Amino acid sequence: MTTKVGILGATGAVGQRLIQLLEPHPDFEIAALTASASSAGETYRDAAKWRVDSPIPASVADSTVRETAPDAVPDDVALVFSSLPSDVGAEVEPAFCEDGYVVSSNSSNARMAEDVPLIIPEVNGDHVGLLEVQRDARGWDGALLKNPNCSTITMVPTLAALDRFGLESVRVSTLQAVSGAGYSGVTSMEIIDNVLPHIGGEEAKMETETTKLLGSFDGSTVETHDVDVQASCNRVPTLDGHLENVWADTTEDVTAEAAAEAMAAMEGADLPSSPERMVRVFEEPDRPQPRLDRMLDSGMAVSAGGIKETSTGIQYDCLAHNTMRGAAGASVLNGELLRSEGYL
Amino acid sequence: MTTKVGILGATGAVGQRLIQLLEPHPDFEIAALTASASSAGETYRDAAKWRVDSPIPASVADSTVRETAPDAVPDDVALVFSSLPSDVGAEVEPAFCEDGYVVSSNSSNARMAEDVPLIIPEVNGDHVGLLEVQRDARGWDGALLKNPNCSTITMVPTLAALDRFGLESVRVSTLQAVSGAGYSGVTSMEIIDNVLPHIGGEEAKMETETTKLLGSFDGSTVETHDVDVQASCNRVPTLDGHLENVWADTTEDVTAEAAAEAMAAMEGADLPSSPERMVRVFEEPDRPQPRLDRMLDSGMAVSAGGIKETSTGIQYDCLAHNTMRGAAGASVLNGELLRSEGYL
Amino acid sequence: MTTKVGILGATGAVGQRLIQLLEPHPDFEIAALTASASSAGETYRDAAKWRVDSPIPASVADSTVRETAPDAVPDDVALVFSSLPSDVGAEVEPAFCEDGYVVSSNSSNARMAEDVPLIIPEVNGDHVGLLEVQRDARGWDGALLKNPNCSTITMVPTLAALDRFGLESVRVSTLQAVSGAGYSGVTSMEIIDNVLPHIGGEEAKMETETTKLLGSFDGSTVETHDVDVQASCNRVPTLDGHLENVWADTTEDVTAEAAAEAMAAMEGADLPSSPERMVRVFEEPDRPQPRLDRMLDSGMAVSAGGIKETSTGIQYDCLAHNTMRGAAGASVLNGELLRSEGYL
Amino acid sequence: MTTKVGILGATGAVGQRLIQLLEPHPDFEIAALTASASSAGETYRDAAKWRVDSPIPASVADSTVRETAPDAVPDDVALVFSSLPSDVGAEVEPAFCEDGYVVSSNSSNARMAEDVPLIIPEVNGDHVGLLEVQRDARGWDGALLKNPNCSTITMVPTLAALDRFGLESVRVSTLQAVSGAGYSGVTSMEIIDNVLPHIGGEEAKMETETTKLLGSFDGSTVETHDVDVQASCNRVPTLDGHLENVWADTTEDVTAEAAAEAMAAMEGADLPSSPERMVRVFEEPDRPQPRLDRMLDSGMAVSAGGIKETSTGIQYDCLAHNTMRGAAGASVLNGELLRSEGYL
Repeated sequence: MTTKVGILGATGAVGQRLIQLLEPHPDFEIAALTASASSAGETYRDAAKWRVDSPIPASVADSTVRETAPDAVPDDVALVFSSLPSDVGAEVEPAFCEDGYVVSSNSSNARMAEDVPLIIPEVNGDHVGLLEVQRDARGWDGALLKNPNCSTITMVPTLAALDRFGLESVRVSTLQAVSGAGYSGVTSMEIIDNVLPHIGGEEAKMETETTKLLGSFDGSTVETHDVDVQASCNRVPTLDGHLENVWADTTEDVTAEAAAEAMAAMEGADLPSSPERMVRVFEEPDRPQPRLDRMLDSGMAVSAGGIKETSTGIQYDCLAHNTMRGAAGASVLNGELLRSEGYL
Repeated sequence: MTTKVGILGATGAVGQRLIQLLEPHPDFEIAALTASASSAGETYRDAAKWRVDSPIPASVADSTVRETAPDAVPDDVALVFSSLPSDVGAEVEPAFCEDGYVVSSNSSNARMAEDVPLIIPEVNGDHVGLLEVQRDARGWDGALLKNPNCSTITMVPTLAALDRFGLESVRVSTLQAVSGAGYSGVTSMEIIDNVLPHIGGEEAKMETETTKLLGSFDGSTVETHDVDVQASCNRVPTLDGHLENVWADTTEDVTAEAAAEAMAAMEGADLPSSPERMVRVFEEPDRPQPRLDRMLDSGMAVSAGGIKETSTGIQYDCLAHNTMRGAAGASVLNGELLRSEGYL
Repeated sequence: MTTKVGILGATGAVGQRLIQLLEPHPDFEIAALTASASSAGETYRDAAKWRVDSPIPASVADSTVRETAPDAVPDDVALVFSSLPSDVGAEVEPAFCEDGYVVSSNSSNARMAEDVPLIIPEVNGDHVGLLEVQRDARGWDGALLKNPNCSTITMVPTLAALDRFGLESVRVSTLQAVSGAGYSGVTSMEIIDNVLPHIGGEEAKMETETTKLLGSFDGSTVETHDVDVQASCNRVPTLDGHLENVWADTTEDVTAEAAAEAMAAMEGADLPSSPERMVRVFEEPDRPQPRLDRMLDSGMAVSAGGIKETSTGIQYDCLAHNTMRGAAGASVLNGELLRSEGYL
Repeated sequence: MTTKVGILGATGAVGQRLIQLLEPHPDFEIAALTASASSAGETYRDAAKWRVDSPIPASVADSTVRETAPDAVPDDVALVFSSLPSDVGAEVEPAFCEDGYVVSSNSSNARMAEDVPLIIPEVNGDHVGLLEVQRDARGWDGALLKNPNCSTITMVPTLAALDRFGLESVRVSTLQAVSGAGYSGVTSMEIIDNVLPHIGGEEAKMETETTKLLGSFDGSTVETHDVDVQASCNRVPTLDGHLENVWADTTEDVTAEAAAEAMAAMEGADLPSSPERMVRVFEEPDRPQPRLDRMLDSGMAVSAGGIKETSTGIQYDCLAHNTMRGAAGASVLNGELLRSEGYL
């Protein structure tokens, strides 16, 4: 039996990816699409400027866009995916939770809130238990679960693999695709023949979210990991796929081989959208590359390569598709976790 | 009185930049252009596929290209600039030195040889004294002086500024322009909508050359600096300008302000092509950017920005024009140093 | 029963696309891969620098590359696909035909030879009958059939649709992707932030091949069409997909609606790789676009849009994927035609 | 004696180019900068996001931005350059003219109005006399003069040269740079690895403006030329420089040589910003190219190449820098004409 789902902020770049992933999904059925009040009442085809490189699904094209409000969404919708601007999300998502909806959200608001689980299922799926605490504390019938920022997701699975060697500190330099900023986030005049060495707020997200994702959940709270993360974030002229250069220093000595093995040993989660192995490890020194490798495992892979020992730890590159594994796919995967764990 | 100069490997990408810089130069006069034997005898216009964005100088266009050999170059040429493939340079440059020519070379061969000075005039101009040792050891009338790799030059002036705080270790991630690989080095199919996370040999160059440039010269040998450099090099879809993300850890605590002041305090060398200040420090968090800032100080600036304190040191971005400050301009500047110090 | 096929020039850009298309093909089975003598004996994985964005098929990766010569290919191979440099093709293809192989070739040699059919199955599939003339004239057991140049294929299906209105003259301006020049054909320094307004030989190909494709076959010769084609060819910074602006002047008056209907009415061929409709007609004025529309119908669609009446005829844009419909897919489709028509 | 000038819409992309050109201008002195009401009162540095690749002039950076209204501009300003959105220009420009200001405008409003001269000085500078008619008709002390659209300017000088052979019809396909749409006009997600085959309103501008520019002025009205122009406009991933493929059919037979000579014979205007020759003619078949040739003559050249005879006329490519010769430089040049002709 399929679960009826809604998409909050369905017309944006991540919203379109959510539709692309949910329309053929075996377990979910799209039953409500919302957007800002000005688009409410229009057909989805008219309200969205469809930009994904597969045609707009016929079943979605003619459905009517609703306002982003709990009473505009049918009651038989059990789960909503949220990809709202963070200020809107901060206001609207709790309202949906109060009204009984379970929210799997990609929006950046509340990710670090103490009673909100921040989850990559293959890394810290057990943190979903924090929802009990949340429901108790907030008196919600619904629930709010977050996935991390795209640049954080790209790196954390590999760090989780290295944590067995005593992860102490991380330096990470990102080469991020323009789609991470949304459809109009980066103008062509900014980025052709150029690099932008700063993405507002991105470095802080990577530095804090990582400590929560790698933290441990004891049934009542998430104890954050004390790894020291120093991030430097850049926008480069690629469409999709964040590439990251990582230096991970560990308390134990680690060889490149041991690091590669640890990454390759990370298992997928037993959920429809999770790949069989969490991390694809390349031996070729010039891989992964954004254009060639971002769509591995239908865009849900994290890949790694260029693994080398340094005097203090391990150095490597990692890559993930920022709007698939890093955003829409991350939310869908968390939705699958919520369904599998009985939260719907 | 001007000095007559030659250019070895004059038809390549760096050779063309050398012509662009030397043709209007106040102290140098181009008197010989060499290329591979197959081009010898052709006019420069025919031999070179001129690709610089200023027209080919008329005085150069019709001059005849010579073979790259000492006896093909007039005797009144005192200084030759070399931008040869490293295997060719390794063979030809010593022959020129034996024949009495002073060689300012951008080629990567012999950069780490004990009696070959590797110089950025504003950083370690005093290492030029190593040429005495070289002449004694090799019995040359000529001399061989090197500038470092473009990616090394971009970073080292800022590291030199920070060394007063006890520079211990450096992690650097580079976002390098395609021109650094030469005119045909990166195909369009490799780089459009993509990043290449590996540049063969580049990381090792940054890691070793830095220790020599920051080393001290005691009159007979260069004692290398013991800084631990860990580099990760990437090619991105920009034409010119290498941007680098740097983490510099120091023994002393440093504030962002102190780091910025130290960089801004670096003086230019008293040479025609050296900028007034070695490092341009930006306060805007999204600068320097390759396209907007690579031509500062006629392409001879190194710029820095995004300076922040970390728990272990300083984090920042730096930028230089890779074929100007990082290659052709570096060689010209070293030629000016050789002239000024009386080696011609 | 499947037909065993070979690929001549299997390591190049079009060769890789041929493998991508033939490996899962219902009717063909890859039985031989050839390359230049220097690669013969290597595994395909080593000989080819695989660059297609789907992984190299396992069955192909470990097969041994053969020399490009008739006696290096097994006798039970009935059909070979050729994607050789034209000078090599001119020498090698006739040798294969003499030896009894049927050759479906994308190479540009011999396309305009009187007894060599040049075919787009949906447009002039009946020209395949010219092979009888060819076999008689040359005494071959094999046969040689060509597909046109990628830029010609993009335009001709739409022109064929308009010919019912009396096609008199065509002006066409092309915006061609870099993959059309092969993997190393366009350097990044040539094309980033630039357009190349000239592609050697391309304009002549469009101008002559079009007259043969639109010509009529009377059982013994192809009478060329007398349409006057004037082409202007440009290379732009796109990876795949040639977009073309066309002005087609006709003897009869044509409305935009009639032109659109004529294009939309063009049927696919009854062959596995042919789309249901030959031409996809867009009503949106800003479509087709290379990145969004090149993969329609698995890359085998020709699409058209922006159809307008002028004072003298019809003006419109058309698009096709240059290495799929325009090269590898075109050869495969012609191979399907040869199989279907009993030439194997 | 210099003329005090104002810039209406000084913070936009063309406004910044106007400052870049006017700040060092020998005859003009910037005395007023205006922007929308929300920016009035701010320093220019704060109000504008300076994006030109030369630093913001110090004299301009700290000046206060004014509202775009006649009474906000000092009375001793004789000439204002206008680069306003066309709807704003349509309202504001006449108000300035009524108030006695002479307006040299790049905005698209009123370009085809009967009593408004539309001028490229080297082509139809004599049309400036229409200002007498305008002042009589409108009772203005000021005056309004327009330059054409960037894509029109690129082509018309070459067409003017060919008109001696009886210009009958023109087909033109444009490959336009992103800067033509303003700083935020084209998003990176729209244009990386893509072409947009439609630019709203652009084709109509080229088709009508050309007939006015090539028309004849008899002292009271401009009789438009009856050339039939059919334009097809595309946006490509270049930063600056519009390249155009042109087919010009003429009543007389023309050789490629005669066409090239006619273009090369076009003289510059005797004005500070006009190049010595109006059209640079390239003999190399692969020139002009946007990146290599857009800055010829300080960005004020129109260049042409690839000139060929067809069965019906002449085919060629032309190029101009769209924000220099095609916008800001065009307005400055018209300002110079107004000054030289005594209209200030």
